[in-house]
Amino acid sequence: MTKARNIAIYGKGGIGKSTTSSNLSAALSDLGLTVMQIGCDPKSDSTNNLRGGKSIPSVLDAMRSRKRIDISDIVYEGFNGILCVEAGGPEPGVGCAGRGIITAIELLKQKNVFEEFKPDVVIYDVLGDVVCGGFSTPIREGVAEQVYTVASSDFMAIYAANNLFKGIRKYANNGGALFSGIIANSMNKQIQKEIINDFAAQTKTTIAGYVPRSLDVTRSELRGQTVVEHAPDSEQAELYRELARSILNNNLKYVPAPLESEELKVWAEGWSDILLKEREHVNKGEIKRSSIEESTLISSEA
Amino acid sequence: MTKARNIAIYGKGGIGKSTTSSNLSAALSDLGLTVMQIGCDPKSDSTNNLRGGKSIPSVLDAMRSRKRIDISDIVYEGFNGILCVEAGGPEPGVGCAGRGIITAIELLKQKNVFEEFKPDVVIYDVLGDVVCGGFSTPIREGVAEQVYTVASSDFMAIYAANNLFKGIRKYANNGGALFSGIIANSMNKQIQKEIINDFAAQTKTTIAGYVPRSLDVTRSELRGQTVVEHAPDSEQAELYRELARSILNNNLKYVPAPLESEELKVWAEGWSDILLKEREHVNKGEIKRSSIEESTLISSEA
Repeated sequence: MTKARNIAIYGKGGIGKSTTSSNLSAALSDLGLTVMQIGCDPKSDSTNNLRGGKSIPSVLDAMRSRKRIDISDIVYEGFNGILCVEAGGPEPGVGCAGRGIITAIELLKQKNVFEEFKPDVVIYDVLGDVVCGGFSTPIREGVAEQVYTVASSDFMAIYAANNLFKGIRKYANNGGALFSGIIANSMNKQIQKEIINDFAAQTKTTIAGYVPRSLDVTRSELRGQTVVEHAPDSEQAELYRELARSILNNNLKYVPAPLESEELKVWAEGWSDILLKEREHVNKGEIKRSSIEESTLISSEA
Repeated sequence: MTKARNIAIYGKGGIGKSTTSSNLSAALSDLGLTVMQIGCDPKSDSTNNLRGGKSIPSVLDAMRSRKRIDISDIVYEGFNGILCVEAGGPEPGVGCAGRGIITAIELLKQKNVFEEFKPDVVIYDVLGDVVCGGFSTPIREGVAEQVYTVASSDFMAIYAANNLFKGIRKYANNGGALFSGIIANSMNKQIQKEIINDFAAQTKTTIAGYVPRSLDVTRSELRGQTVVEHAPDSEQAELYRELARSILNNNLKYVPAPLESEELKVWAEGWSDILLKEREHVNKGEIKRSSIEESTLISSEA
């Protein structure tokens, strides 16, 4: 057995991080690999779509409630034998939301979970909104070797990605995890691809794959399933399988070149102007206003 | 001079928290009040739209870069004399993203900023994504008396609001700030109002006001202004002035009744089913698919 491949997938909440992670896990497991997915978001719902929509108790929950913890209290089997773990989060208002991650990972090591299950791939699904010390532990502590980020063309997602790049750069010389690519999500329009491609060019990063929004995903998740499980013959499922193959073959590991705050602002303003012009152009063509408002891409919390 | 009214406005990133805070500040200042807005988001862009889109150095930046800090290094005048402060954030990957808030507030007190400027209203614009110990300091440390949250009908926004309620409940008996209302944002469709109203009913909270999305806001912000400044005669500006008046008159302070995680999930699933049915109904009516996908309201990271 070779050492497990440890991949951290960061993304701002709501951007499709858990959807991507769980579909990736499902697709990798379809390829015959033993996969473990570790949710590192205080919401603790990363693995729900691998388990029929049902939540599992988190490692921190287990640590809080029991004296002696068995492996079966923290590792649960999901779709196609995928090993599901949720790190858990603190009580709202108390302590560090990210520090729980390292506590959870330490317990998994102490319980010899990785030796017991011998996963080929371990996916850490990490909340990327606040790249504070806590949430950056998978980068800092040599937990993951490769880091991906799920990002859309939305400014907040890009801001979070740029902060992640700063975090990676900070620890790159001290054995920290390196970056392996942007998973471009919600890519339905050409301009969304242009924005994310330009951001990648600016930050000297690469795109690991493009994934559009899809009603098949919404439908599958309402049933508590990945699209790989619920609609394996759909175009979207095939996209996730392609992404899984390309991530398996991707050995890129590098230090990104994040933009400084002011540069990022100027860059975003440039795209905002383009989008506004395009939108006003559409407006003149009398397409109804509400649909235009919904397509706001780059807007500072509009 | 009576004591300043200290209001904390929480909201998940991207939900319109800074837009709401800065328009509220602008509207309150139009009413003749002295207003101070303190951005408590590591992004440090809360006050940009009060200052022509320009960022100000944050308190943490000032503390990092200088030996002696003058008030003029941390308090900047914006639209209509509004006093602008940004708490700032840590370096990505290091320390606690929220702890900077209390450091910044302590420095403001130490420098007698509140005595110097005698603001009638102080608005704390706080990132509500991760209600960890750091970000809950404005609730916990008696900094604010009233807490509002900006939320849309999106599940992630509602999840963040529910966590905020848990944080408030936790400290309610120890002198913590109490809740005063939900500012319902991005309210363009009837069903969005129904969702947020139902969430308020479930959590025994109140709605402080409804604000729709508006292209006037987007246009104003591209010019680095609030809609109150850029388009004072617009319907949207009047809405913010109404909101400002109702917040001034709102003396409600109470402990919310957050849903437990499982209850919240069941509640969200109920609305998801309704939305999916509605969407499939619309689908049959042959409205184009892309506009339907964009109106996803409750979806777990689809």
